[in-house]
Amino acid sequence: MADEQTNQSTQQLNTVEFEATTSALDERFMARALELATKATGRTHPNPMVGAVIVKDGHIIGEGFHHKAGEAHAEVNALQQAGDEAKGATLYVTLEPCAHYGKTPPCAKRVIEAGIQRVVIGVVDPNPLVGGKGIEMLREAGITVSTGILTSECAKLIEGFLTYIKTGRPFVTLKSAMSLDGKIATRTGHSQWITNETARQDGHRLRATHDVILTGIGTILSDNPSLNCRLPIETLASDNKESSSVDTTPLHQPDVVVLDSLGRTPLEANIFKQANRHVYIFVSPACEAETVEALRNKGAKVITVDATYSGLDIGQILETLGDLGFTSVLVEGGSHVIASFVEAKAFNKIVTYIGNTIIGGQEALGAVTGQGIDQLVDGIQLRFESATILDNNIRLESYVMEGRGTECSPELLKK
Amino acid sequence: MADEQTNQSTQQLNTVEFEATTSALDERFMARALELATKATGRTHPNPMVGAVIVKDGHIIGEGFHHKAGEAHAEVNALQQAGDEAKGATLYVTLEPCAHYGKTPPCAKRVIEAGIQRVVIGVVDPNPLVGGKGIEMLREAGITVSTGILTSECAKLIEGFLTYIKTGRPFVTLKSAMSLDGKIATRTGHSQWITNETARQDGHRLRATHDVILTGIGTILSDNPSLNCRLPIETLASDNKESSSVDTTPLHQPDVVVLDSLGRTPLEANIFKQANRHVYIFVSPACEAETVEALRNKGAKVITVDATYSGLDIGQILETLGDLGFTSVLVEGGSHVIASFVEAKAFNKIVTYIGNTIIGGQEALGAVTGQGIDQLVDGIQLRFESATILDNNIRLESYVMEGRGTECSPELLKK
Repeated sequence: MADEQTNQSTQQLNTVEFEATTSALDERFMARALELATKATGRTHPNPMVGAVIVKDGHIIGEGFHHKAGEAHAEVNALQQAGDEAKGATLYVTLEPCAHYGKTPPCAKRVIEAGIQRVVIGVVDPNPLVGGKGIEMLREAGITVSTGILTSECAKLIEGFLTYIKTGRPFVTLKSAMSLDGKIATRTGHSQWITNETARQDGHRLRATHDVILTGIGTILSDNPSLNCRLPIETLASDNKESSSVDTTPLHQPDVVVLDSLGRTPLEANIFKQANRHVYIFVSPACEAETVEALRNKGAKVITVDATYSGLDIGQILETLGDLGFTSVLVEGGSHVIASFVEAKAFNKIVTYIGNTIIGGQEALGAVTGQGIDQLVDGIQLRFESATILDNNIRLESYVMEGRGTECSPELLKK
Repeated sequence: MADEQTNQSTQQLNTVEFEATTSALDERFMARALELATKATGRTHPNPMVGAVIVKDGHIIGEGFHHKAGEAHAEVNALQQAGDEAKGATLYVTLEPCAHYGKTPPCAKRVIEAGIQRVVIGVVDPNPLVGGKGIEMLREAGITVSTGILTSECAKLIEGFLTYIKTGRPFVTLKSAMSLDGKIATRTGHSQWITNETARQDGHRLRATHDVILTGIGTILSDNPSLNCRLPIETLASDNKESSSVDTTPLHQPDVVVLDSLGRTPLEANIFKQANRHVYIFVSPACEAETVEALRNKGAKVITVDATYSGLDIGQILETLGDLGFTSVLVEGGSHVIASFVEAKAFNKIVTYIGNTIIGGQEALGAVTGQGIDQLVDGIQLRFESATILDNNIRLESYVMEGRGTECSPELLKK
């Protein structure tokens, strides 16, 4: 009896040890799949980034990632590299394989045909056309399917896509660059530069990972920005350990959205001078027809939405952007534009860069203007995700917390 | 010849290895000395915190720290614990042993008498009465003295003391608590609480490590704060691994300084209700004699300094506080008081707590008011030391950079 108990304990211990080992290995290979996925940062729009790894006898025999929309999915690329060896192997993939015919045949079918024995999935696809169906198809074919490995990391990688699929609206990131005391310019309007080169380059990396950059007419008139992603290809490549294998197709240039009630965007503005992208100008019904016409002749897509007391209806704008298929928007204010999104509680995330200086002065422009809240209880509650010293500037990343603010919080997506 | 070279290389290698090992061991024991020193956090004023460890054959045979002014120094406490075993041992001490007769006999003498063979010192004492003299005395007695082990950490522990000794002025820390957009209150003046309990408790820890808390009349009138350190003794104790050995004498209560040009501090203010500490009120020459008299009768020490366009002369105030023997000042504004120190470039460090909310509104009070700078080049340059998520609030610690702002930067002290 005592012996039996001992044996049982040993067996339990072995099972636990085995599970711990399997779990650690699973995480290692899923981490590699995540790493592969990011090789296409800013290039898969409107698709999500996906990475896949095929493992046999503890060795990687195939790797792949989704390069761009219309091209092969990550699993297919990995299967191609593995060839016949895929039979009996384990597939690690950051997003559930699709089970429907889109631009390419369903990946789940390919996985089954290749004789894969086990599939480990990072995040289940929230798309109603896919959600769980890929897993179902795999299980029906006798394949063991595991989920829950690095799920948060896999979800974060495609947070824009997940929000879009669940809510029909794009994921909204606010970007703010300020002094340690929350100012975005001196009282005389001087603002170049509060943050340093490294922080600004990190901002360009943010641009690369969003479908659209949104700004206000104030920024267009005062700074005349180009709003393109000027990150050298080598910089994105250096994010990966094996830069030689990085996709060298040109960077994805996000489309541009300007909130411009009266259509005051100058026809010679720099935003019109970039190739391979669209410019959307949201105006109010008060905008003159000739103005709309002139902007359209310049190539802009002009869309009219309702006006509110403080500007344009942010909800309508996000609905429209969602309908246009945009999964993520980077808001680069203007403290007025940032305030519009904060007051509408219409954002998911805020990235704050803090320069290593103090500006001071009550008149100096703050990071968020508008009306502001009266009582602290009215304020949006944030969850800080990271606080980093970036070459002697600070980068803070925070999310709107579940149950407060917007309903499309990334927290909800993990459920 | 080839063999000789090989032997030489091996010898060099061994020496390098030995040095690497010695250095790693030295750091380990110095880290322990540092840990011991912090057990008296907030209790050694006006002396610096100091810790000491005595090591023989790789084992710790004695530990000590300076408990409070007038009592034994750290080295003496460690020597007492080691007893006769100290003969031939190594002493690790965070600050150079003193060589002069103060309230206690010179420690260097005691170290020599105990038969210590080697002394490892964290930071050389900047006090002209001590500076290098302790080391000299030890070396003359045939003791091997090593310096440069965890020097930055040892200097940081006593940054206030070091600044005071070098400049005659106290080390000035600004404390600021704001929303993510740099506001310290809503437009209606609501401010309790922007930061959470954990951040506020960390603020009390800051109070415990400074000789004086300084604030402005605005804060006294609006908040009527007590400005005492209300950190439970257990909390400070929990900073140390061996809480049982923590000194349980009552917390040091910093003295209070109010900048109050016209002497408007109410005689029934809470700052007067704390025992065992002094209240200093700095007024301008415009303050009425009767007002000064009334405040003095209440127990306050009233000191007149020159007025400036924006308040009181910060330089004069710091000189006075230095003359009074204060080594460190924690400035808890009021954005107006914070602005006075920023505009006078009269601070060394700023600790910023950021709550997980956004207040917004141009009218809402910013963290630093005053006039502010016109051009970014006029701003103080900071060096960020740490960025931490503290229970979903942010804590940023930054120092004024060498060559900019105040001359008493801690960077200078490392030279």
